[in-house]
Amino acid sequence: MSGHDAIEVISAKRDRHELSDSQIDWVIDAYTKGAVADEQMSSLAMAILLNGMTRREIARWTDAMIASGERMDFSTLSRPTADKHSTGGVGDKITLPLAPLVAACGVAVPQLSGRGLGHTGGTLDKLESIPGWRAALSNQEMFAQLESVGAVVCAAGDELAPADKKLYALRDVTGTVEAIPLIASSIMSKKIAEGTGALVLDVKVGTGAFMKDVDQARELAETMVALGTDAGVHTVALLTDMSTPLGLTAGNAIEVAESVEVLAGGGPADVVELTLALAREMLAGAGRDDVDPAEKLADGSAMDAWKQMIRAQDGDPDAALPVARECHVVTAPSSGVLTRLDAMAVGLAAWRLGAGRARKEDPVQAGAGVVWHARPGDDVTEGEPLFTLLSDDEHRFSRALESLEGGFDIEPGGTPFEATPLVIDRVG
Amino acid sequence: MSGHDAIEVISAKRDRHELSDSQIDWVIDAYTKGAVADEQMSSLAMAILLNGMTRREIARWTDAMIASGERMDFSTLSRPTADKHSTGGVGDKITLPLAPLVAACGVAVPQLSGRGLGHTGGTLDKLESIPGWRAALSNQEMFAQLESVGAVVCAAGDELAPADKKLYALRDVTGTVEAIPLIASSIMSKKIAEGTGALVLDVKVGTGAFMKDVDQARELAETMVALGTDAGVHTVALLTDMSTPLGLTAGNAIEVAESVEVLAGGGPADVVELTLALAREMLAGAGRDDVDPAEKLADGSAMDAWKQMIRAQDGDPDAALPVARECHVVTAPSSGVLTRLDAMAVGLAAWRLGAGRARKEDPVQAGAGVVWHARPGDDVTEGEPLFTLLSDDEHRFSRALESLEGGFDIEPGGTPFEATPLVIDRVG
Repeated sequence: MSGHDAIEVISAKRDRHELSDSQIDWVIDAYTKGAVADEQMSSLAMAILLNGMTRREIARWTDAMIASGERMDFSTLSRPTADKHSTGGVGDKITLPLAPLVAACGVAVPQLSGRGLGHTGGTLDKLESIPGWRAALSNQEMFAQLESVGAVVCAAGDELAPADKKLYALRDVTGTVEAIPLIASSIMSKKIAEGTGALVLDVKVGTGAFMKDVDQARELAETMVALGTDAGVHTVALLTDMSTPLGLTAGNAIEVAESVEVLAGGGPADVVELTLALAREMLAGAGRDDVDPAEKLADGSAMDAWKQMIRAQDGDPDAALPVARECHVVTAPSSGVLTRLDAMAVGLAAWRLGAGRARKEDPVQAGAGVVWHARPGDDVTEGEPLFTLLSDDEHRFSRALESLEGGFDIEPGGTPFEATPLVIDRVG
Repeated sequence: MSGHDAIEVISAKRDRHELSDSQIDWVIDAYTKGAVADEQMSSLAMAILLNGMTRREIARWTDAMIASGERMDFSTLSRPTADKHSTGGVGDKITLPLAPLVAACGVAVPQLSGRGLGHTGGTLDKLESIPGWRAALSNQEMFAQLESVGAVVCAAGDELAPADKKLYALRDVTGTVEAIPLIASSIMSKKIAEGTGALVLDVKVGTGAFMKDVDQARELAETMVALGTDAGVHTVALLTDMSTPLGLTAGNAIEVAESVEVLAGGGPADVVELTLALAREMLAGAGRDDVDPAEKLADGSAMDAWKQMIRAQDGDPDAALPVARECHVVTAPSSGVLTRLDAMAVGLAAWRLGAGRARKEDPVQAGAGVVWHARPGDDVTEGEPLFTLLSDDEHRFSRALESLEGGFDIEPGGTPFEATPLVIDRVG
């Protein structure tokens, strides 16, 4: 691990050389310990962003980040484990119905999750709108809950891939987030360290996603699937559409409510479709493709698992959810067919209403968000509600309205409409 | 200057866009004030290194760095001003004879200089080996000395292009030194802020130089000449060879001694040749090409100016120079013609002997360095001295010897030898 220095490693990547295992191990270890400074790691990150990394380099980088902290082990659980990771989308509440559904099918879901930053929401933020629910669990609590309930969604501890934690915060302020090797290794180091046996990646593509184009998304998916497979985790990825937001809500409490509808056997068709598609992949990865998740939704056992999961983390699944203090209704400006609803426009509006945060120390509003009353392909009528904006602060409406401008199209009635498929491709 | 943020500027350059004037002004000002963090500037510097900058961007970047501090003005002096800047080479003591020579020709030389870092020596380090000599002058002292003596070599104050000072230190530790836009703007911001009327750039090419190949060196030269010309400074550049070290010495006191030999009318032919070539360019730039510098060397007036210049900064030009406590002689391993003497090998040896520093806070040894007893083209005899290594610490010899290994070739007597021209090209 010795014999290297920061300038040597930076210069090698700058000059388009492949980094050696020893260079990668050294730089991650030294950065974690503070011997490589932030300004050195950020110039290295920019060089990686612009010059790329080979699959071997990415794999070693990921291993080094895992080695910077603890690695969990669920092999002694009585059932197999499977997890899901989404690269982040608007209205993406899928984890909420998915985790208890998969648990109800006999596969344990050990999900270490994050908070939202920017226009895509965070799973923990959504769950925290449930009165009493807490995100922080000890490893012992997590293990016990996986055995008793079968599903845990909780905050990742500081001991899990600390190098990634530090690097992620640095990339966020240095314009180096958009590097596929760094995105892939960041996600996969946490998921491999988390100790899941199977993993399904939901890689979002479209205006509301990090990856705007399908080729980039496929490259990211292939990179992550290879990393997971090499680490002994059964990994597949679905490329799914994020040009349109998922479901009919983007926010925190309102997405919990929509998720509960799905668990009750209702809810928007796209949310149900994606939840079942991901559940089937998780079950197959865990060797339980004999179970049909649709049945577990229909017979109420997924809802039972949800309630147990929420209660196990001190939440009250039957309590009333928080409601925003102010609301503002946007009506359809004309009649016809809603042919486009832009995910980024909706995500930005929800963020501006207070559902998301600009900096990681900011609070979020539990009740804030956007409800849309039609999905692409639906008929709308001039003067009827198209969006309901929700916020605790009235002054937030004007900026949210700005972000919705140009974010949807209404064409005359009878205009042919072809829906984009929700699942675009499968990698793995 | 408002309405920008660091991520916006970094992302623009990362994504290969041209930065606007307003973005450049903002980022330099914000960095100088600390509102843009080191880790943000270093990722921007790496993006500039890898994606480049247009001439317009470089010019604006240079202007913004000048505007970060004070700008000197010598227009009220009774004579015209001209300065020289070298991109740094091994054995490059040219400033020492050149500044008093040009002063003796009636043109004032206001040289704000730096200390050495790495294998190339620093002019201030060399002059500081003269007992009593001080590098720090106030602006008033500098102005008075230019009027009375005509030549000043002193340390740049903190008020001159502070943005460059901060950025230079950052680039040094983040692998972002090797970016032509940043090198050119760093050099030219200081030289333009320094207020010289004419400027000659000595752009070194070869193993011992920063620029290893002539096309890169020409690009740097052209960039700097354009920047100077646009700023109203009469600017030309010479591309000169740095595959072989200059003269017969690399160190501090030993280079002062060699410079004094040149001022006394002797000294190595290459040092004399380059000194005169640069002097002619400086005189021409200042409108005094009627004066022949060779005459001023021959008639002792350059030596007089040297002594006045040293005395004006409290140095004793007649005092004995410091001598290293230890020496080690390397003899020629065979007889024949010395066909190659590698500048980098010699520079590294001098540095390892204590003539240079690894970090800017390190001291240097006044007496340390390397003397070579033959130049390429000279005959050498087996067993006769080829190098003399000088240091205050005996333990430094072994590492210095390592760096000389493979650093020279001796071919059988009669091998035809063609010397590389010292001045390769002229730009401007």
